[in-house]
Amino acid sequence: MQAASGRRLAPGARRAQLVAAGLDLVDRQRLATVGAAEVAAHAGVSKALVFHYFATTDDLHAAIVEAAAAELLASLLTDPSLPAEERLRAGLEAYVASIERRPAAHLAVVRSLGSNPRLAAVVEASRTQVVALILDAMQLGATPPGLQMMVRAWIAMVEEAVLHWLQERPVPRAQLVDLLQQAGLASLAAAAGQVNGEE
Amino acid sequence: MQAASGRRLAPGARRAQLVAAGLDLVDRQRLATVGAAEVAAHAGVSKALVFHYFATTDDLHAAIVEAAAAELLASLLTDPSLPAEERLRAGLEAYVASIERRPAAHLAVVRSLGSNPRLAAVVEASRTQVVALILDAMQLGATPPGLQMMVRAWIAMVEEAVLHWLQERPVPRAQLVDLLQQAGLASLAAAAGQVNGEE
Repeated sequence: MQAASGRRLAPGARRAQLVAAGLDLVDRQRLATVGAAEVAAHAGVSKALVFHYFATTDDLHAAIVEAAAAELLASLLTDPSLPAEERLRAGLEAYVASIERRPAAHLAVVRSLGSNPRLAAVVEASRTQVVALILDAMQLGATPPGLQMMVRAWIAMVEEAVLHWLQERPVPRAQLVDLLQQAGLASLAAAAGQVNGEE
Repeated sequence: MQAASGRRLAPGARRAQLVAAGLDLVDRQRLATVGAAEVAAHAGVSKALVFHYFATTDDLHAAIVEAAAAELLASLLTDPSLPAEERLRAGLEAYVASIERRPAAHLAVVRSLGSNPRLAAVVEASRTQVVALILDAMQLGATPPGLQMMVRAWIAMVEEAVLHWLQERPVPRAQLVDLLQQAGLASLAAAAGQVNGEE
C-alpha cells in the first residue's frame, strides 16, 4: 500500500484518504484503539502526516465519525418525486444498507458515544438533520414541536431496532424495514393528526 | 437532620436511608458529584457509616441507580384484570409520573450511562424486565424474537420522547401518553401480525 498511498495528494484528498483508512479500521477494532499510528500504517503514510491533519486522537475520531454521519445523511436523500410513504421506506432501506456496509464500525461508534461528548455532539447534530429530512420527505413542513418530538423518538426506535437486528437478526431485513415503516407511519400520523386536529 | 437520622437503624433500613439520600441529591446535582461525604451530610450520619455500606463511590452510584430502577419497575406493574390497551396506557402513565417525580435525577442517570458501564448494565437489565412486563401485559406470551426487538425499540422511543418532553414539554402530559400509546399499539400490532401471519 505504501507505494500507491505515498504519492502526492491534494490536502483535501489526503485528509479524506486518512479518514477513509480510519473508518476502515473502526470496522475491525474498537474506536479507542484507532490512533495516528494505526491510521498511518493502514494508509501507508507517515505518522507525522496523520498528525499534520489531526493534531489529537480526539480530532481524528471526530473526523471519522463526521465522515460516517455525512455518508449516512447523503444516503438518506430520497427521490422527492416519490410519495411520502415510499420516501420513508426508501430512507429506511438506505439507512439499514448504509449500516450493513460497516456494521462493526456502527457498533463501535454507538458504543463510544456515551464516553465521548464530542462524538455524541456530532451524532446528535446528524440526528437533527435526519429529523428535518423526515419532516420534509413526509411533507409535514413547518410543524408543531410535539411532532418533532415524535420524529426524534421514532429515530431512537429505528436506531435501537437496527442495533438489536445487527446483533441477532431475528427477522429478514425486508421485514425489519416493514416493521419500522409501519411504526413510523402510525407514530407520525398520530402526532400530526393529534397536533393539528384535536388541539 | 443529625438527631433524627443518627439513631440506630437495622442495617437494611440504614442502607435504604442512605440510598434515598443519594437519590434525593441526584435530583439536585450531577451523579458524579454525589459521593460518600455528600450522602453522609445529607443523611446526617458519618462518612464512615456510608463507607461501611458502600466501599466505593461506584458501589454507591450503582445502588442509587438500582433503587431508581426498582422503584420504576414497581410502578409499572399494572392491574392484570384490565384490557391490554389500558394496561399499556397505565404503564406509560406510571412511567411518566415516576420520572416526573425526580426529573433531574432521571436526566442525571441517563447522562451518566454512557461513561459508566456498570450503571448502563443496571439500566439494561431493567429494560429487559420492562420488555417481559409489556409482553405479559399485552398477552403476547412466548413471542418470536422480531416482536421482542420491536418492544425493545418502542421502549427506546418512549425513553427518547420522555427525555425530550422533560426538557421542552411541547405538548401536555396526557397528549404525550396518547402519542406513545398509539405508536406502541401500532408497532406491536404490526410486529405481532407480521411475525404470526405473514411468515
